[in-house]
Formats: sequence, structure tokens, C-alpha cells
Amino acid sequence: MYAFWNILSFLIAGGALAYAVILFRQIMRKDQGDAAMQKIAVAVQTGGRAFLHAEYKWLAIFVAVVFTLLCFGRAEQFLGIKTAIAFLMGATASASAGYFGMHCATRAAVRTTQAAKTSLGAALDIAFKSGTVMGMTVVGLGLIGITVLMLAYRDATTNFANYVLGFSFGASSIALFARVGGGIYTKAADVGGDLVGKVEAGIPEDDPRNPAVIADNVGDNVGDVAGMGADLFESYVGAIISTAIIGWSLVPTTLTGDAHADAMSSLLMYPIVLSAVGIVASFLGTFRVKADDESKLSSALFGGLIAASVFLVIGGALVTMLIQPQPLRAVGSTEQIGHWSVYLSMVVGLVVGVLIGKVTEYYTSEKMAPSQTIAQQSQTGAATNIIYGLATGMASTWIPTLLLAVAIYLCNHLAGMYGICVAAVGMLSTLGISLGVDAYGPVADNAGGLAEMSHQPPEVRKRTDSLDATGNTTAAIGKGFAIGSAALTALALFSAYKVEAANEALRVGQVPPDLGLDNANVVMGLLVGAMLPFVFSSMAMKAVGKAANAMVEEVRRQFREIPGLKEGTGGEPDYARCVAISTQGALRQMAAPGLLAVLAPILMGMVFGKAAVGGLLGGATASGVMMALFMANAGGAWDNAKKYIEAGHLGGKGSDTHKAAVTGDTVGDPFKDTAGPSINILMKLMTIASLIALPLFA
Amino acid sequence: MYAFWNILSFLIAGGALAYAVILFRQIMRKDQGDAAMQKIAVAVQTGGRAFLHAEYKWLAIFVAVVFTLLCFGRAEQFLGIKTAIAFLMGATASASAGYFGMHCATRAAVRTTQAAKTSLGAALDIAFKSGTVMGMTVVGLGLIGITVLMLAYRDATTNFANYVLGFSFGASSIALFARVGGGIYTKAADVGGDLVGKVEAGIPEDDPRNPAVIADNVGDNVGDVAGMGADLFESYVGAIISTAIIGWSLVPTTLTGDAHADAMSSLLMYPIVLSAVGIVASFLGTFRVKADDESKLSSALFGGLIAASVFLVIGGALVTMLIQPQPLRAVGSTEQIGHWSVYLSMVVGLVVGVLIGKVTEYYTSEKMAPSQTIAQQSQTGAATNIIYGLATGMASTWIPTLLLAVAIYLCNHLAGMYGICVAAVGMLSTLGISLGVDAYGPVADNAGGLAEMSHQPPEVRKRTDSLDATGNTTAAIGKGFAIGSAALTALALFSAYKVEAANEALRVGQVPPDLGLDNANVVMGLLVGAMLPFVFSSMAMKAVGKAANAMVEEVRRQFREIPGLKEGTGGEPDYARCVAISTQGALRQMAAPGLLAVLAPILMGMVFGKAAVGGLLGGATASGVMMALFMANAGGAWDNAKKYIEAGHLGGKGSDTHKAAVTGDTVGDPFKDTAGPSINILMKLMTIASLIALPLFA
Repeated sequence: MYAFWNILSFLIAGGALAYAVILFRQIMRKDQGDAAMQKIAVAVQTGGRAFLHAEYKWLAIFVAVVFTLLCFGRAEQFLGIKTAIAFLMGATASASAGYFGMHCATRAAVRTTQAAKTSLGAALDIAFKSGTVMGMTVVGLGLIGITVLMLAYRDATTNFANYVLGFSFGASSIALFARVGGGIYTKAADVGGDLVGKVEAGIPEDDPRNPAVIADNVGDNVGDVAGMGADLFESYVGAIISTAIIGWSLVPTTLTGDAHADAMSSLLMYPIVLSAVGIVASFLGTFRVKADDESKLSSALFGGLIAASVFLVIGGALVTMLIQPQPLRAVGSTEQIGHWSVYLSMVVGLVVGVLIGKVTEYYTSEKMAPSQTIAQQSQTGAATNIIYGLATGMASTWIPTLLLAVAIYLCNHLAGMYGICVAAVGMLSTLGISLGVDAYGPVADNAGGLAEMSHQPPEVRKRTDSLDATGNTTAAIGKGFAIGSAALTALALFSAYKVEAANEALRVGQVPPDLGLDNANVVMGLLVGAMLPFVFSSMAMKAVGKAANAMVEEVRRQFREIPGLKEGTGGEPDYARCVAISTQGALRQMAAPGLLAVLAPILMGMVFGKAAVGGLLGGATASGVMMALFMANAGGAWDNAKKYIEAGHLGGKGSDTHKAAVTGDTVGDPFKDTAGPSINILMKLMTIASLIALPLFA
Repeated sequence: MYAFWNILSFLIAGGALAYAVILFRQIMRKDQGDAAMQKIAVAVQTGGRAFLHAEYKWLAIFVAVVFTLLCFGRAEQFLGIKTAIAFLMGATASASAGYFGMHCATRAAVRTTQAAKTSLGAALDIAFKSGTVMGMTVVGLGLIGITVLMLAYRDATTNFANYVLGFSFGASSIALFARVGGGIYTKAADVGGDLVGKVEAGIPEDDPRNPAVIADNVGDNVGDVAGMGADLFESYVGAIISTAIIGWSLVPTTLTGDAHADAMSSLLMYPIVLSAVGIVASFLGTFRVKADDESKLSSALFGGLIAASVFLVIGGALVTMLIQPQPLRAVGSTEQIGHWSVYLSMVVGLVVGVLIGKVTEYYTSEKMAPSQTIAQQSQTGAATNIIYGLATGMASTWIPTLLLAVAIYLCNHLAGMYGICVAAVGMLSTLGISLGVDAYGPVADNAGGLAEMSHQPPEVRKRTDSLDATGNTTAAIGKGFAIGSAALTALALFSAYKVEAANEALRVGQVPPDLGLDNANVVMGLLVGAMLPFVFSSMAMKAVGKAANAMVEEVRRQFREIPGLKEGTGGEPDYARCVAISTQGALRQMAAPGLLAVLAPILMGMVFGKAAVGGLLGGATASGVMMALFMANAGGAWDNAKKYIEAGHLGGKGSDTHKAAVTGDTVGDPFKDTAGPSINILMKLMTIASLIALPLFA
């Protein structure tokens, strides 16, 4: 049955990819508008490609080095060629998903603008399809990679999912640099371009005279499409593989022979098959997303997500009956857990994921109290705007944290460590559509920018604006969801670390590490771990500052040296130069935080051992979740407080209140688009790096 | 020997109090200047007293309720009348120390101004003596309380230091409200007064026409003298008592009879005697603090601190030889630790405390790169000022955290859990002088304000300014030291929690709680705990906003309704009304965060048990240390970036760069003076509350 379910899942994952290709072709067949629009679109497409090419060139070196190092490892320590190949596949799959998703998004944006000339429904159709291409590519490539490796590495005597973990490690490595690099890129262009364009030269946002405007548009795609995709790709595969690793370790020892093999298969297959069901559910859900007028937009998108969730709950029940996964409560225990308890853990994960997204919407929406309070506090100046924004971000941690705590408590009661891992899988299983809903946002945003730059009539701009406004809401939900799923995935991976750290110790004849808080090494690790997200965020924020400064210099230079550019009387801006500067800035600045994430746990392990690393991972996850929520939600709330004022409240655009709100928004940019989301990866990557490097630890 | 050492320590502590009284009398004999100065000074004295009276009235109710609840507890669970009395004594001692310290500081300030008419040396003498009064009062009352209780509750068969913990709980309760209430008070007056006075009415800072100016001066005393004193009082007694609790549990079981009793005595006495030696060392150190001109100020103060440290290292070696504390490595182990290892742990704590202070100085001093970079970033506006300030605060966590990690690692290797506790005692043992150096700052600050308000000649102002500038440096060091010692004390208390949680479980016939990170309840607690400092900080910052708004309304009203006030042509401001508003605002807003700190761990324990609380305390300490460092150092760096510009750099006062820097400074105010320092208490109080409430836990 193991092979059967894996092959079936493989086929479904292949179907997801096929669906992505069909949607992409449908998009490409649409009208891409007039010459002015196409010219801008081509510039964005070229810029995006240039960044990814440059980034991937550096990443190829990193991947080659790690691949070689992994090859030298010993197979019985879950290193060696098997892990190396899985690593290479994971890196390639993640990079390909990012590349294809962005390729599609930059082509869909201009067609969305063109479709907006006809109707809102037609424009939504293209933008959402482009998002779905990203979503289906991520789940398709992710599940194909996992099923292939789970079949190829199948072995009756070792916990072979540990080799497959290489796939997750590969995905994580790409994700870190994509998120950090993409985050630096997008904000360097945005902040740098605005500082000179809007503030110094006095030309409006998205004005084609600004040389950084193309880099800014490229940045949206690099950060919000490729970066977000890589982030969730990592969560998706990390959750599935850690569930499989835990599953193997919890096979009932009371069973023997075929019964034992069946039990093992069921525990390893279950997360994979659930994810396959999630793909089908997401596919069905996408057909619910249709809207003709603005009022129905939000409910259409959210309706699709809910429909997919309902399908998953039904389909999940069916496969639970067929597969009947029944782990032991804990290693060494004889108490077996019922398969419906495992199923319920999945449902808990699914529900908590949706709820965390909704809480994020509350804290960041301009229709809700927190963001409006920040707007009101802007009346007494930038300082009170900042104080309330920071306070709102800090306060926003409490409900998501309690939701996560409840999920951990319930799932642990239902099905132990395995239940917590399955909850992460459940949360992420409808990623095909939830990432679609999320990645639709930047396409709509870019379509609006294109309409502005190519001087489309007001009704076109109005339609793209309403798409964009809804996109901001779904993006907020998506960000909360990304953090929640990263936290749960990090915990699932952490569970795998704890199990494997004990196993590795037993393998070499040591006592299992004492992960108790009464062990001073764990407490030491806990403090160091809690410190890392702070230092990492600091580095990311300063990196944006440095890259933005380089952009400022360049834009000033062009305004100075290209005659007639600023006045709009002639002179073409050199977009490519700005794209190159953002690219170089991002690549140069992403190295240090990236290496910190990989090296910190490995160094800690080599010097102080497995228990200290356990503490470090616990501390980093705990403080990382808070920092991610704090920064993402403060940034979102500042952004929408500004938009609330721009909509005409409290004096509207141009007032002193508005100026104060703009300050908050600028502070929020590196918070919500660079440092905050990068922490998602930090939490996961550190845990995976620790798992891989376990044999090196003292 | 137990009684001998305790009585000797009691006498030394009494000596500290006597020294405080002598210094206070010396101060009171000094000239308090002309009528104008005295009028202002009396207003500040009255305002400070009014706040403390109002605060203590509310605290008395809180203390009465908790006292009654404790009385109902059972003695074998370390509750009941013994703990209740200790609690009452701790609360009274902490409140008295705060009251007396502030009483002295508000009287010393005006005399410092008057002395500055003669010479810098004379002014320094008064200001530093006033700080020393606070320092000696804290250590004197603290050690008297502990020695009395340790003698009164002496018992050969139970770990009676657990009853003495009530003293620490009492001190913590007062400290929380003093820090939070004081923090809200001082910033409400400062921010509210500045917003109307400087920004709207255009009158300078410290101008007597501003009705909030007295409240602002009161605030400095309430926050920086009484609040800081209560904070460190709590750390001081918490470190000593948790060391005693751990000490008892580590008495070598290989010993019997008198040898057993002696070993026990030595482990319980050692932290007490070390603290007594620290008092003598501090006393001797104070004589080194003399300076005639500005260049020698800083080295005089720091020299006193170093001298005291050297005396402690020597004196500590002597008592170590005499007492020879030799715990077992861990409960149940037979390996005994040499007494020199214990001594070295003390030295590690002492050194790390000084180093953490120095790191804080680096990150916040206007002479160093971090603060100057923030000043430079102010040239591109408030947003970049804020981004770099936040990034600097986040980055500043790394060295102190690594120092703490090294201390934990070394002390654990040297002398296990007992070593970590002794390190905390060592760090705090010279508090008599280190708090003196710290509390001298606000006195100098107030003296400068008085000189300004009473229109003293420029040379007086110049002398008070140079005292104030040095005070800012010592205050920065003091803040870092307060965080470092709070962290180590929290860890010491946490050790006591772990030991007592196991003991309590054994008492009622349960298995000891599993504090491993592989226990889902611990992980759940860890997340919730890491969230609490964020939510707590958010509440504190919003509280300042609300209280400041009330102050703004009142100052506006007075300017509007009192004829000639704004113009300075007549009309006396109603200072008392502003003092009352700050008082009410602080008292109203301090309740919610205060109750959160006490109730969160107790609720967690009642519902989810001891292990979940263990996780909660670990998470709260880890994220709390980072938040405390982040907020204190960001705030300090912003403050000094502004001062750097005001000193004439980058365009100087009044430039756009300066305006941007003022925004950062305003954001930094609630960061560094309200939310940041309150977290010190949060970490300790939550652990003590958990220790006390252990019998209630599931």
C-alpha cells in the first residue's frame, strides 16, 4: 500500500503542475495591451529575471559547497550522497517554483491591467489565476520531490525520512536567501525611490520618470511572489517530512512482521496523502473564486479558501478511514492512539491557520480599531504614531500565540508529538489555494502600477485599485498564515530534532541529551536562541538602509545628469541601472544574516552539544514567533493607518497627520517586508541545519 | 556558626543603615539656597510625597489581600503565617527604602544646586552622598530583613529559606508597581509637558511657567530613584534567598550529624556573608569618590565601583576560606564541589555585571558609533532615525546575552546551579555603591533643572550640567547592570522553582514535573511566556500615551484659563493639579500590567501544571531579557543621538536633523523609562509568584 499511496500522491502532484501550466497558458493567451504598457511590462520582466539570475548564480555556489560537504558525510548518520541528492533536488525545486511563479506573475500583471479595461471580473480572473499558478507549482513540485524520494529511499530498517530531510534543507537554503535578498531588494527600491522621487523631486509615486520605479515593481514580485512562495514551499515540505520522521519513530513495537510494516507505512504515508487530498481540495476551491463587482471580491477569495477547507475535512476523513494511522503515544510507550485523534489534529491545524490569518487582518485592516487608533495618534505627530504602531505590533502577539498554544495542547493530547506535526501538515495542506489567494495581491498591485504608469483612463485605475485593496487584505491574512505555519512547522521540525538527537546519541553509545530546563546548557542555549531573531532583524533592517542609500545616490545622479528627465521634457531614465543596484545591494547584504542562521546552531552544537542546541532552537522559535508577529503586524497597521488617512479621514493626504503617518509607514516597510518575514525562514532553517548537522555535535 | 555569621551580617547591615542616616544628616545640614530655589524644591518634595502616599495607599490594599491569602495557606507547603509575615516585611522594607531614598534625593537636589555655586567638588559630594543613601538603605534593609528571618525561621528539617522567600515576594510586589507606576508617572509628565510647553506654547524646557514642570521633576525621582531602588532591592534579596534555597537542597547527603548541620549552615550563610562583605567593600569604595574638576568626575565614580569590587574579591576570598561552602554537584549526586569553585562563580558574576554595564555604555553613549550613526541617519528624516534606533536596540542584545551565556556556562561548570545563584549574589553584592553611582544621576539632573528654573548664573548651570552629563553615563551603565542582574536573579529564582517544583511533587506523591523541551506542555508554556513581555510592554507604552494625553489637556487648560501664565506676566501655574493628574494616571494604568504579571503564571499553573509554568518562566526570561535590552538601549541611543546633535553636530539644535532626532527621543522615552525597566520586574516577579503558588498547581 505504501507504494500505491505514494504513486497516487505523485500523480496528483503532477496534476497540480499540469493545472499550473494550463492556467499559465490561459494567461499568456490574453491580450497584453498597447505598446506603452508592454514596454513597462517587459522592463519589469527583464529586471525580475536579472535579479533571479544573479541571485541563483550565488546560490549555485552555496548549493555546490553544501552538496559536496554532504557527500562526505556517512550514510548511517543520514548524510552522504542520498541526503546530498535530496538537498540538490529541494534547492532546485524551490528555485524553480520561485522562478516560474515570478515569470508568470510579471506576465499576468500587464494582462490584468488590459483586462481591467473590460471588467473587474476579467481582471480578477487573470490575477487570481496567476496566484494559483504559484500555489499549484509550489505544492506540485514539493509533493513530487517528496514522493519520489520517499519511494527511492524506502528501507525497512532505517528511518529513511531523514535522508529526505535533505530536500527540506535544500528548500530552506533557497528560501532564506530568497526571503532576505528579496526583502532587501524590494524595500531598497521602494524606500530609495520614494526618498528622492516623492520627497526631493516632488513627482508622484509610480511615475515613469523615476528611474527606480521599475526596480520597485520588480521588488514586489521578487519579495511578495518569489520570496513568499519559497517561504511556504519550505514550510510545506518541512511539515510533511518531519511528520514522517516522527511517524517512523512512533511505530508500535507491539507489532511484528507485516503488521509492523503496515503500521509504519501508514504513519509515513499519512501526511503525504493528506497533502495530496489538499491539492484536490484546493483545485476544487479555485472554481469558487469568481466576482463581478467589488463588494463580492473579498468573499469570493475567502469563499474559495473555505470551500477548499471543507473539501479537505471531508476528503481527509475518507483517507483517514482507509489509512488508519495509529502511532504510539511516545517512544517506548505501549499506549496506541486512535486514528481519529490523528485526523482531529489535522482539523485543529487547519482551523488555527485560518484563525491566525483572521487575527492578522483585524490588527492590520484600516477598517478596524488598531489601525485607526494609530491614524488618530498621528494627529500629535510622528512620535505618537510610532509609539502606538510599536505597541500595536507587540499587542498583536497574544491571540496568535494563544491559538498556537491551544493547538499544541490539543494536538498533543489527541496524538502526541505526531499530532502536532500533523496539525502543521493540515494547516498547510490547502496551500495550493491559500498561496493563490495571497500571491494574487502583488499581481493586482503591479497591475495598478502599470495602469498608473501607462496613463490608463480612471475606470481602469478604479478597477485595479479595488483589486489591490482586496489584495492588501488577503496579503495580511497570508502573512499571518505564513507566520503561524512557520511556527508550527518549526515546532514539528523541533520534534524531529528531539527524537533524532536522542537516536543519534544512542547510535554512538551516549545517553540521550537532557533537554530539561534544569540543564544549564539548555538555559544557556535558550538565551542565545532568543537573541538571534533580534540580531537577525537588526541586520536585515540595516541592510535595507544601506541598499536604499545606494539607490538614493543613483536616482539623484540620473536626475542630475540626464537632461529633461525630472521635468518630463525628454531624457529616458536608466531603469536597468537601478535594477542592478537593488540586485547588487540585496545580494551583498543577504550573506551575513544568511550565514548567521546556518552557522549559529552548528557552532553551538559543536562546542556545547545537542542539549544546548535544543535550548537554542526553543529560544529562537519562541522569540522568533513574537518578533515575526510584532514586526509584520506593526508594519501592516502603519501601512493601513496611512491609507485610512489618504482615504480622506483626519485631514487626508498632504496634512501634517498624513506626514506623520508616512513616517510610520516607512519604518514599517523593512519591518513587514524584510525583517519580519525573514524570521519565518530563520526559525525553520536553524532547526533543519541542526538536524542535518547532528552527527557533528559534541 | 550559623547564628554568629547571621548576627554579624545583621550588624553590618545595620551599619549600612547607620551610614545612610549619617550621610542624610550631613546632606540636610547643607545650605538649601535662596527662597526661589526652596519654593521649587518644596513643590517637588511635596509632589513626590503625594505620589508615594497615593501609591502606597493602593499597595496597602494589595498587600493586605495577599497577606490574608498567604495566611490561609498551609505551613508544610511553605505558605501560612510565616510566609505572610515575611511578605509583609519585604513589602514594608522595599516601600521604606523607596520612600527614604526619594525623601533624601528631593532634598539633596536643591542643596547640590546651592553647592554648585561654590565648586564642582562640593556639588558632587552632595549628589553622590544622596545616591549612596539610597544604595546603603537598600542593602541595609534587605540584609536586615533576610538575616532576621533566616534566624527566626531556622529549622533543621525543612528548607526554611522557602518561608523567607515571602520577603522577596513582598519586595517584588512593591517593585512592580513602583517601576510600572513610576515609569508611567515620569513619562506622562515629561511627554505631556513637552508636547504643550515646548511644541505648542514655545516655552523652553524646565521653564517654571509650564504647569507640568514640577510633575516632570517629581517623575525623575519617582522613576529613577524610587523605581530603580525597588527594582534592585528585589534583585538583591531575590538572589540571596534563591541561593539559600538551592543551597539547602544541595547539602551533601554523605554527611551526618554535626557535619551535616555545618555543611547546611555554610551553604545557607555563604550568600548572606558575601553580601555583608559587599556592604563593607561598598562603604570603603565610597571614599574614593572625590573630584574637583569635570575631567575627573567619571573616573572618580567608576573608580569607587572598581575599588569596591577589588575589596569584595579580597574579602570574599577570606570568608570563603572561613565558611568553605561545598555543595553537591546536583541533587542525588555524590560529587562534591570545592569551595574555591563557588568563590570563582561569585567573581564571574561580579565581572560580568561590570562588563554588561560597559556594553550598555557603548551602545548608548554619544561618544560612540551606534548613537552617532543614529544622529547621521536623522539627516534623512524621522523614519531613518527610528529604523536605525530600533536596529541598534535589537543589535545591542548580542554581547550582554553572550556574557550571560558564558556566565551560566562557567558557573554551572564550576559549581552547578548553586554557582549560577552565587554569581547573581556576586553581581549584586556591591549594590551599596553601584546603586549610589546610579542614583546620583537623577539628583544631578534635578539640580540642573532647579538651577534653570531659579535662574542661577551660568557657571552654576555649567557645573550642574557636567554633573548631569556624567550622570547620564552612569545611568546607562546602571540600566545595563539592572537588566543583567535581573536576568541572573530570574535564573537563580528559576533554579529554585525547578528544585521546589520537584520537591513539591514528591511531597504529594507525584513524579517530578518533566521540564524537558520534549514535553509539549513546556513548549506551550515557552511560547506563552515569550509572548508576555511583548504584551506587557505594549500595555506600558499605551499607558504612557493615555496618561500623557490627560496631562496635555490639563496644561492646555491652565494656559487657557490662567491669565498671564503663558506670557509670564502674572498668574501662577497650578503645579499640584498636574502632579495629581500624573499620580492618578499612573495608578490607574499600572493595575492591568501588574495583575498580568502575577496572574499569568498562576493561571497557567492551575490549568496546565508545573511543567507548563516552567516553560512559561523560561520563555518569559529569554524574551524578557531581549526586550529589556532592546528597549533600554534603543531609548538610550536615541536620547544621546539627540544630545549629540544638540552639542552642535550635523546642523545643531533647531535643524531638521534635530527635529528628526527629537522624534526618536520621544519614542525612546516610554521604551527606556517605562516598558524596558518594568520587564526586569516582570521576569523576577513571575518566577517568585510561581514559587509561592506552587501548591496550587495542577
